[in-house]
This record gives sequence, C-alpha cells and structure tokens, in this order.
Amino acid sequence: MAFVTEDNLSDLAVKRWATAHSPRLAELMTALVRHLHAYAREVRLTEEEWAAAVEWLTATGRISDDKRQEFILASDVLGLSTLVVQLNHHFSADATPATVLGPFHIDGSPTAGFGADMSDGIPGTPVFITGRVLDLDGTPLPDVVLDVWQADADGAYEAQLPEIDEARLRALYRTRADGTYCVRTIAPRGYAIPMDGPVGDLIGRTDISHFRPAHVHFLIDHPGHEKLITHLFREGSEFLDTDVVFGTKDELIVRFTEEPAGSSPDGGTIDEPYLRAEFDFVLQPRRTDEPQP
Amino acid sequence: MAFVTEDNLSDLAVKRWATAHSPRLAELMTALVRHLHAYAREVRLTEEEWAAAVEWLTATGRISDDKRQEFILASDVLGLSTLVVQLNHHFSADATPATVLGPFHIDGSPTAGFGADMSDGIPGTPVFITGRVLDLDGTPLPDVVLDVWQADADGAYEAQLPEIDEARLRALYRTRADGTYCVRTIAPRGYAIPMDGPVGDLIGRTDISHFRPAHVHFLIDHPGHEKLITHLFREGSEFLDTDVVFGTKDELIVRFTEEPAGSSPDGGTIDEPYLRAEFDFVLQPRRTDEPQP
Ligand SMILES: [Fe+2]
Ligand SMILES: [Fe+2]
Repeated sequence: MAFVTEDNLSDLAVKRWATAHSPRLAELMTALVRHLHAYAREVRLTEEEWAAAVEWLTATGRISDDKRQEFILASDVLGLSTLVVQLNHHFSADATPATVLGPFHIDGSPTAGFGADMSDGIPGTPVFITGRVLDLDGTPLPDVVLDVWQADADGAYEAQLPEIDEARLRALYRTRADGTYCVRTIAPRGYAIPMDGPVGDLIGRTDISHFRPAHVHFLIDHPGHEKLITHLFREGSEFLDTDVVFGTKDELIVRFTEEPAGSSPDGGTIDEPYLRAEFDFVLQPRRTDEPQP
Repeated sequence: MAFVTEDNLSDLAVKRWATAHSPRLAELMTALVRHLHAYAREVRLTEEEWAAAVEWLTATGRISDDKRQEFILASDVLGLSTLVVQLNHHFSADATPATVLGPFHIDGSPTAGFGADMSDGIPGTPVFITGRVLDLDGTPLPDVVLDVWQADADGAYEAQLPEIDEARLRALYRTRADGTYCVRTIAPRGYAIPMDGPVGDLIGRTDISHFRPAHVHFLIDHPGHEKLITHLFREGSEFLDTDVVFGTKDELIVRFTEEPAGSSPDGGTIDEPYLRAEFDFVLQPRRTDEPQP
C-alpha cells in the first residue's frame, strides 16, 4: 500500500477526483487540485496562512445574502470575472465587446418608450444616450430590447437599497423600425465597491483603488445573436484606467457632450442643459454549430 | 492607456495585487491571481460553471459556524490540509510524522493520570495505548503532555454533539519520569465525514469513499521540540488506503493486540478482555535558527 508523502500526495488527490461521474466535473476538479497544490507548494503556504484563508472564505460566505454577493466581488477584484467574460465571448473585432455583469442587475425591469426617463425624479444631470443597434454587417435591427441599469449619484444601485415599489434607474428600452434607441437618465458617476467586508479588508491592505469609473450597464439578448452584457463608460471620468473590476475597454468609452436646453434627442424639448452620448451597439450573430475557438 | 484584453488581463491583475503593503501578502496574492487565471484559462471556465462555483463557495461559508467548518473539510478532501502539514513539518525520518489536525480538537481537556480512562462509561471495547515519548536520540522525555481525542463508536466527536458539562473522549496525559505514558480509552472506529453539506454534495458526484479509517488523535507540544500533531491508526481497519482526508501514513499504523482480562498495562487489573497498542512517539528537536528547507 502506498500511503501519503509530500511527493505522491498531489497525484493521489488528482487520481481520486478523476473519478467524478461527469467527465467535465472530473476535468474541473482534477485541474483545481493541480493548481491548488501547485499554489501551496510554490508559496510554501504556512499553517497560519492556511487558517487565515479558511477564516476569510468563511466570512465571505457568511456576509453574502440575497442582496450582497461578496464572492462575486472577490472574483471581480481578482480579475477572474472579466477573464471568464473574455473566455466565453469571442466576438468579432467589429462587434461591441462584452464586460462584467456585476452583482446589481435586476430581472424584469419595466418597459420604457423612446426617450422615456428612467431616472424619474432622482437628482442628477439629465443624459440622453442615443444610437442604433446593428447587426455585424451594419444592418439596423428593429425591436431589440436594451436592458439598462445604473447607480444613482451616491453610487447606489436599487439592489443595494431597501426594497421599494417602483423600479429605480433601470428600464427596458426597444429599438424602433430604423434600429434607433433613446435612453434618458442622469449622468453616471464613479463609485466605490463595498469596503466593509472581507474583500474590502484585503483591498485595504494594498494600494489598489477601490473605485469604478462612471458607467451605465446594458444587457442585450436578441434572438439569433450572442447575448451582449456590457457598459458604456463616460469619457474623461476618473478611475477609467484603474477600474477595480478590470471592466474598462477602449471601445466602450463614449463622449458625453454638453447640449443647451431646447430640443431634445427624443424629438421633444427639455428646459435645462443636458448631456448627450451616442453609441451604436453591434451584435455578434450566434455561431450555434461552431465550437468556441 | 492600455485597457483590458484577454492577453493582458492576468498581467494587469498580478501587477495590481503586487501593491500589497506586506511583501508576503503581495507574494501570496500575486501567486493566487496567476494560478486562478491559469486554472480558468486551462479549463476554459464557462459562465455557468463560474456561477455554480460562486454558489458552492457561498453555501460552504453559510453552513459553517462555531461547531462546523465546511471550508476545512473542503481543504481536507482536496488534499490541501495534508499538503500544508507536509510543507510545514519537515521532520527527520526517525521522528514520528505529523498528520492533519482535523476540525474536532478542543482546547483545555482535563488532565488524566497514568492509565486513567478517558472513555469513562461510553460503550466500546477497552483499549490501552502505551509507550514512551522519546527525543530524536532515543532519550526518554519525562513530563511530556499528550493531548488525546477521538470519536465515539458512532463516529461523533464531542465538538459535534450538543454541549455537555464534562469532557468526552478527550484528556491530557503526561509521561512519567521514565518517559512512559498510558492512555485508556475505547477502540476507535472508522467514520464518515459529514455528507449533508456542499462538500458531501461534491463527493457524492464521484466514486470517492467518504470514510476515515479508525484512529486516535494526539497533539504533543513540548518545549524545545516541534509541535507534533498526529494520529495513531488501527492496523487492519477499513479505509486505511482510501482515507478521505489523505491522512494515513505507514509509520502511524499500530497493531491492536487482544489481551485477556486480568492484569492491565497501567499496573492494575481489568475484568474484561481488552486491546493493547504500543507506540513510541519520537519528537523532532526544534530548529529555531535554521530556515525551513
Ligand atoms: Fe456598475
Ligand atoms: Fe478524527
């Protein structure tokens, strides 16, 4: 019988987890064991460090609930969330790139007409975001639903606030026959990730900036196309190049131009100055039969 | 400005975590990011798998409390706990090897005299474990405290049961002037790890045996010597070569011989047949000034 030694232990553990009934689970678990053991061996993990890691993981699980997901935050700040997005969305260079979903999306937002104001009474500078949704070949796509959400001026998403009756800074817009859409909201601002949990504790022991640049979230799930989860970032805003969740992409940075009161992009009028951002979303046709590259 | 791409993301994340204020934390975090990203890239982790992992980690944290530590169990079954023990206890080949502490040790057990019965009324076959505690050069060590604990015949440790007033199957023994010790207890039995949590759920999707072989835990922390955390395993018991926490070592397997009623190893008498195990613990002198190999 071969019992455990420092030399054979990792191989024994890999062999054991290779017995997972699903081939994919076997692949995931054996690779996990290999990388986990390689990590511990490389850093020569001490027993105190191991115990601290167990405590940190436990605290991270215990602070998570329906509203707060500290493990997603951990994945975000380690760059894992963005990496998983990259690995799973190999779009053409001409398609709008994806970025992280984040923990604050809420299903079932109310529908909003062309230019309807999803900020409805919440203080902030008015913003119109306008443009088209296009197929990869440039064809405008009618009847495409854009699921839009953002934080308020304090950096709070509806999901982070006490429950309310009406949707707050989120809505479903739809493109018109010519592929155009028009979102009305307030200017997004940079915000801090929650720093009062185990992730914040870790970040606080580094020089890492714990802010995200100003952005609005978009989710477009249109038949025949790859689901697009992305942001638009405001050009010139702080933290673009230090986004704590590694979400910023060149292609997603949009200029917000200052416009005078008067006629507004939805064809109506507005009695105060506003900001306007223009962006065409280009969707990647779904490659159902091709294996992922 | 260089924003995130699939190619540069891992390097950016490593660079960021390298800003940790403590050099050791920087080393631990940058290596973690490298291995975590290498894992996700190697298995091409899908978004569904990532979400399942987040859920599993959260459940593992939420089921853990003062009495149950599911992350330690996870570390145990992945072979990580044993690996960390191996990495941190490079004893001489002649010293008694260490093995996992496990989650069931309780501090402050009551002291017990030579041959005192720590099983006190709990049903089971009587066992005497006798021997000496020796220095690496063979010198018997007097006044060494042996912290001993084990599960009952149902596989339950005191830490897993509702709180009671008296210590249950745990005690502190002490060597006499000639280095001898004598523990009286009941025969240990193999037991299953808790299978009603996220770790059990994962194990249940493999052919991995979820049992540990019969063993008694020992902790010996004697001045001038490396702390020894170890088990004695009963020779011939089931699960020795499939120990779910990778704890079995050849050197720790001990024969339990059957002895007739009559005189007992503590110099007294016993009115029923009993089992006897003999084992000399050999302690590793502390190498305070040497760097760990
Ligand atoms: Fe956001
Ligand atoms: Fe045990």
